[in-house]
Amino acid sequence: MSQTPVPLPAGFTAAGLHCGVKKDATLFDLSLFVSQSPAAAAGVFTTNLVHGAPVKVSRRRVPRATARAVVINSGNSNACTGDQGVADAEWMTAEVARHLGCVADDVLVCSTGVIGRFLPRDKLAGGIPRVTAALSASDAALLDAARGIMTTDTFPKQATHVGKLGGRTLRISGVAKGAAMIAPNMGTMLSVILTDARLTPAEADAALRHAVDRSFNCISVEGHMSTSDTVILLANGAAEVGPTTPEERLSFQSWLDAVAADLAQQIIRDAEGADHEIEITVRGLKSRSDAFRIAKSVADSPLVKTAITGADPNWGRIVSAVGYAGVPLSESDITLHLNGLLLYKSGVPQPFDAAKVSQGIRENRRVLIELDFPLGNESVKFWTCDLTAEYVRLNADYTT
Amino acid sequence: MSQTPVPLPAGFTAAGLHCGVKKDATLFDLSLFVSQSPAAAAGVFTTNLVHGAPVKVSRRRVPRATARAVVINSGNSNACTGDQGVADAEWMTAEVARHLGCVADDVLVCSTGVIGRFLPRDKLAGGIPRVTAALSASDAALLDAARGIMTTDTFPKQATHVGKLGGRTLRISGVAKGAAMIAPNMGTMLSVILTDARLTPAEADAALRHAVDRSFNCISVEGHMSTSDTVILLANGAAEVGPTTPEERLSFQSWLDAVAADLAQQIIRDAEGADHEIEITVRGLKSRSDAFRIAKSVADSPLVKTAITGADPNWGRIVSAVGYAGVPLSESDITLHLNGLLLYKSGVPQPFDAAKVSQGIRENRRVLIELDFPLGNESVKFWTCDLTAEYVRLNADYTT
Repeated sequence: MSQTPVPLPAGFTAAGLHCGVKKDATLFDLSLFVSQSPAAAAGVFTTNLVHGAPVKVSRRRVPRATARAVVINSGNSNACTGDQGVADAEWMTAEVARHLGCVADDVLVCSTGVIGRFLPRDKLAGGIPRVTAALSASDAALLDAARGIMTTDTFPKQATHVGKLGGRTLRISGVAKGAAMIAPNMGTMLSVILTDARLTPAEADAALRHAVDRSFNCISVEGHMSTSDTVILLANGAAEVGPTTPEERLSFQSWLDAVAADLAQQIIRDAEGADHEIEITVRGLKSRSDAFRIAKSVADSPLVKTAITGADPNWGRIVSAVGYAGVPLSESDITLHLNGLLLYKSGVPQPFDAAKVSQGIRENRRVLIELDFPLGNESVKFWTCDLTAEYVRLNADYTT
Repeated sequence: MSQTPVPLPAGFTAAGLHCGVKKDATLFDLSLFVSQSPAAAAGVFTTNLVHGAPVKVSRRRVPRATARAVVINSGNSNACTGDQGVADAEWMTAEVARHLGCVADDVLVCSTGVIGRFLPRDKLAGGIPRVTAALSASDAALLDAARGIMTTDTFPKQATHVGKLGGRTLRISGVAKGAAMIAPNMGTMLSVILTDARLTPAEADAALRHAVDRSFNCISVEGHMSTSDTVILLANGAAEVGPTTPEERLSFQSWLDAVAADLAQQIIRDAEGADHEIEITVRGLKSRSDAFRIAKSVADSPLVKTAITGADPNWGRIVSAVGYAGVPLSESDITLHLNGLLLYKSGVPQPFDAAKVSQGIRENRRVLIELDFPLGNESVKFWTCDLTAEYVRLNADYTT
């Protein structure tokens, strides 16, 4: 959780403010991220076939070499809004482009909030000139922009990393907003990551996909895939250096992975109603996708989540969720550690002090589930949270 | 919900009693179902690769022509118990066979309850002679047997149907126990269906699979697949008639389907913590499996469930769960009715009185979700329940 100021990379400005999409005037609902020069842009989007209009518009504009801006409103997701929604999203990018002096295709757009309502163009028409005028390269500007994309998040999410390549310093800074856990009308995971490193669009695309696969794609609150999930990377080259050798590429990838993982874990940390963060490590599978399936099956089981909520060392729920993950294996392939303690070894229950394990879960916010298999060398880390009565209250006690 | 007595079909006896697997002496924990003559037997079992020892033992004994009994204990699932578990399950059938004077292979076995603990052979060794001695053809005997398989169910589940073929009367009677919703240590869905109709093992197998696909496979509480789910059909031919013509086969199938669907819906009705039963109808898909995937995706979404809990007409959660079901379609293919009211038509939101829809959900225990598509002629019905704070409490507030 970055409580310290997060600087923008060189050549970027940002702003965030209230324009009226949300009723509460103290809440920001419009953010703008701008590169002073054309930037390489990549995007990773929800695979939900029902997706928001901004996803349709932004998806066909990346990867590209000449991106200038990302505009995001919160308070209205512009999803399930048909042709009108697409026209509204395109209009939003055209308005931003007009104020920046670029073409609409160089502007990407995201929206998050209530589903199935048309975008209030009047509010945005008033807000876009103001957010453009407010653009700044200060740390406060990035924080404002991080606030402008929040819906039910309780804190703005930012992360940054400084790296050195060929004697030059480059920076990667990102913001994110949280997942569906408490969103009354379809929450969404959004993230914008900016870097002054020099990347081609293809490099940006490959690097972003690698990072997302190890961060945002490895978190789950309740397994309901949003209509609007979007992660965008802009790389403007203002640091006048980029990864060129295999070693440099590995270094840059590890920095980008770290920023994305930091943001993703902040989303889990902010899962309202959650009492525990659960880290699931799955090792020893033939493929990463096998390991991923097992981790997600365990992470999405309400019985596993409620066991953690209740500090119940109920390992049968974990082992049985492995069994229906869709990965060919047998019971004797499974070894389970919970918070470092061996509970199930190669299919055989191990004696353990249940009271002690229970106490360990109760006294720590973080829970570690480790599953080991003798089937290969691939592994995955996955983050989720427990399921509490408070979660249900937050998601039920709302009327449209 | 059958509160009226449910008779056994001709040529069957049953019994249920307390033998000590459960600590509470007022609770039954051992049930026996016996056919006086060799019966055709079929079984459908969990597809979880982690499954109980009784599943391993029973699965390899069906379909068969000479089954005599099903023995079931509750209070211990004999799952994740390795080789010892299999030996214990085989011993249990051998003990029953010894008292009935048949071979062990003609006895099927199920266990439900705590996972990962060895079966208390001493308790069962005392119980099996007593439950054999208690066998009776009375309605009370079947009710006792229905009680003996309960874990956290709040009422015993029974259903029956009388049909006529070729001037002769036949009966189908079944019992079931509930799913995982509240089970502290892996609940399980079990059902035994008995009929005096004359069926070959292959006919019994085909008829049971058809019925299970339209009943027990179409219910979901939280999407966590049990290690022990089992449905067994015994057909002993004591009615001296069976379906032989295509019309008779259709009739018999519809009766068996009805008994299975009745039992399955009783399981949903008994999902503790649930305030609403949700019936999801999906129509107009290319295949039944496409329709099934969509229904299950909607049914398993905690966001859909909590929306119903909160009487929130939040159709975006339903539509977006359709979008990630894995079925190729576009938004404009989706039409949604909630409790008979059109909310979303061919991808376009429809104006509706949210307060009225909310009131309708609040005032009725049953909620109808209907999803229509223009993609084909296949359909499915699926039953689930909402997700309440009470569910979380029941599943969390337990320590092994």
